[in-house]
Amino acid sequence: MKASAIANANIALVKYWGKRNKELMLPQTGSVSMTTDGLQSHTTVEFDLKYPEDILVVNGKEYNKGDEEYDDYVGKFLSVVREITGNQTRCKIVSNNNFPTAAGLASSAAGFAALATAVNEALGMGLDKEQLSMLARRGSGSATRSIHSGFVEWHKGEEDDGSDCMAKQLFTPEHWPEFRMVIAVTTKNDKKIKSRAGMAKTVENCPYYSVWRDEIVPRDIVTIKKAIAERDFRTLGETAELNCLKMHATAMTTNPPIIYWNAGTIDIMHAVMDWRDEGMQCYFTIDGGPQVKILCLEKDALEIANRVKQFPNVEDIIITKPGKGAMVTDEHIF
Amino acid sequence: MKASAIANANIALVKYWGKRNKELMLPQTGSVSMTTDGLQSHTTVEFDLKYPEDILVVNGKEYNKGDEEYDDYVGKFLSVVREITGNQTRCKIVSNNNFPTAAGLASSAAGFAALATAVNEALGMGLDKEQLSMLARRGSGSATRSIHSGFVEWHKGEEDDGSDCMAKQLFTPEHWPEFRMVIAVTTKNDKKIKSRAGMAKTVENCPYYSVWRDEIVPRDIVTIKKAIAERDFRTLGETAELNCLKMHATAMTTNPPIIYWNAGTIDIMHAVMDWRDEGMQCYFTIDGGPQVKILCLEKDALEIANRVKQFPNVEDIIITKPGKGAMVTDEHIF
Repeated sequence: MKASAIANANIALVKYWGKRNKELMLPQTGSVSMTTDGLQSHTTVEFDLKYPEDILVVNGKEYNKGDEEYDDYVGKFLSVVREITGNQTRCKIVSNNNFPTAAGLASSAAGFAALATAVNEALGMGLDKEQLSMLARRGSGSATRSIHSGFVEWHKGEEDDGSDCMAKQLFTPEHWPEFRMVIAVTTKNDKKIKSRAGMAKTVENCPYYSVWRDEIVPRDIVTIKKAIAERDFRTLGETAELNCLKMHATAMTTNPPIIYWNAGTIDIMHAVMDWRDEGMQCYFTIDGGPQVKILCLEKDALEIANRVKQFPNVEDIIITKPGKGAMVTDEHIF
Repeated sequence: MKASAIANANIALVKYWGKRNKELMLPQTGSVSMTTDGLQSHTTVEFDLKYPEDILVVNGKEYNKGDEEYDDYVGKFLSVVREITGNQTRCKIVSNNNFPTAAGLASSAAGFAALATAVNEALGMGLDKEQLSMLARRGSGSATRSIHSGFVEWHKGEEDDGSDCMAKQLFTPEHWPEFRMVIAVTTKNDKKIKSRAGMAKTVENCPYYSVWRDEIVPRDIVTIKKAIAERDFRTLGETAELNCLKMHATAMTTNPPIIYWNAGTIDIMHAVMDWRDEGMQCYFTIDGGPQVKILCLEKDALEIANRVKQFPNVEDIIITKPGKGAMVTDEHIF
C-alpha cells in the first residue's frame, strides 16, 4: 500500500476566486488554466499499520495532527478518502516541491493532485481522471485542474453534492507547444493571507463580487476557450490579464482589504505593459500572491526572462510551458 | 481688470471618478473632500486689450493657443467665462503651484479654484461661493470643492444643465483641527494618464462601474459625513481607505487597464496597514497618481512622516491639515 505520483502546478487564465460550499470545495464559478511543466510536486504515500497516526512531511518538515497545516489541509482530505474507501489505516505522506510553497505558486494544487493520484494507486481506488479531479478538489480547489495535461477547464457544476464539479481537459500540451509563461518570483516568503481565507471574505463582503461571479467569469471563460482553440495569443493575453485584475479588484475591495502585490509585482506589471506598447507580445497574470506570471510565446521567452532579471526585487525566474497532468511514478521518495 | 487669488488643493475622502456630462463637467456621483492647508496655487489674471491672445504661464512655463494644456483646460474655461460675461477681452494668466503639478496632487483643483476666484474678481462677476464653485467646475471637476474651507461635499445634482451641481461646505477647519494628512510623494513625474482620460474610459467599459456609481458612493458619502460630524476617526479612515481601493479597482479593470500605483505606492500601502495592525491610527487614500496620502491625527503625524522618510522611493513628504478655501489676495505675481 505504497505509491508515488508527480503533479505539476497549474496557472489559471480565468481565475477561481470564491467557494459556494466550503466543505465540498465547490467553487462559485468555473475557471480555465494551463498545467505547467516542471513546477512539480513529488509525493509518496504509504498506508501501513506501523503508523499509529498520520505523518506528513513537506519539503523535509514534519507536520502532525494538531498542526494547522495537517488538520486544515491533509487531515480533512484523508477523512474524505477514509469515508470513500472505508479503510482506516493510517499513513505516512512525504511530499517535495521543487518551487516555493505557499507564495502564490499553486503549491497546494500540485501537492493535492499528486497526493490524490498516489492515494488512488496505493489504495486501489480505481478512479478515472475526472473522478480523480473530484477527489483532488477535496484537498484544494485548484488541485482539481492539475490532474489534467495542457489546457484545462474546471466546471463549477450545478449539483449540491458536487458530483458534476470536475475538471476536463480542453487541449493537450501539443496543441500549443510555443506557449510560455515566465514566472518572476518577487518573494519566497509565505504569504500573509492564505487564498482560502481571502476568498471567503471576498464572497462575504466585496461589493463587486456578484458582477465577478455572474458576468465577468462566464464571459471570460467563453472568450478564453475560443482564444486557446484558435491559438489567438492576443485575445488570450488581453482576457487573462484583465481577468486577473478583475479578480484582484475583488480581493482589494474586501473589508479588510486583501492586497497580494508587492513593489516587485507592480514594477513588473508596469514593465509588461510598457514592453507591450513597444511591440513585444506579453501579458501578465497574478494569483493570490506577489509572483507575476508573464504570458508569452517561445520566441520572446528568453528575452523577457533577461529583462525581468534586471529588477532588484526579483529573486528567481522560472520559464514554463503547457505540461503534463498528474501521474503515478515508481520513484518513491522514502 | 487685474486680480489675484490663492486656493488650496483638496483631497477626496469619497472619490470623484467619472463624468455624466463632459462639456458641463457634471459628475456621475457626489464626493466628499478635505481642503488642504498650504498645497497652494497662487494665480493672477489680467484682462487687457494689450493682449492680442490669451497667455498662460504655469510655474514659469508659457502656454498658448494650440498647446494642449491651454486648449483643453484654460481655453475651454475662458470660453465659458466669456459666454457668461459677454466680455471678449483677452487675458494673461500667471499661476504658481508650490507642489508637483499633474502627479495626482490635485494641482488642477487648486489651479482652477484660484483662477475662477481671480476671474470673478477681475471681471466683477459678483458670484457667491456656490456660484463660484460651479464656475470652477467648468475648468476641472474637483476644483469645485477647493472653493470652500475645511470639509466639503460636492453635490452631483440632478439637472441636465448643471444648475444644482455645486460644492457646499460641511464643516470649517476648526471643527476638526487635529485631523492630518501625511502626503508621501513617490514620484514628481507627470503621470502618464490624465484623470480626465482615465475616468472617461472607466465609465465606458469597466464592468464594476455601475456598482461604484449606484451603490458604493451613495453609501460611503452618508457614512463619511456622519464620521466627520462625530469626529469618528476610525470610521472615517476605514471608509476612505476602502473607497479609494474601490475607485482604483474600477480604473484597473478598465480596458486597457489604468494602474496609477508604483512600487513606492504599494510599499507605503502595506506599511500603513502594518502600522495599523500595531495600533497606530492611520489609513491611506490615493488619487489618480502614485502619491499616498496617509490620514492620521496630529499626535501621530510626525512619527508617521519620519517612518515614511525611510522608504527609498519617497522623494518628498508634506504634512497638511484642513485648510482655507479659495480667496482673493492683493499680492499679484506679475
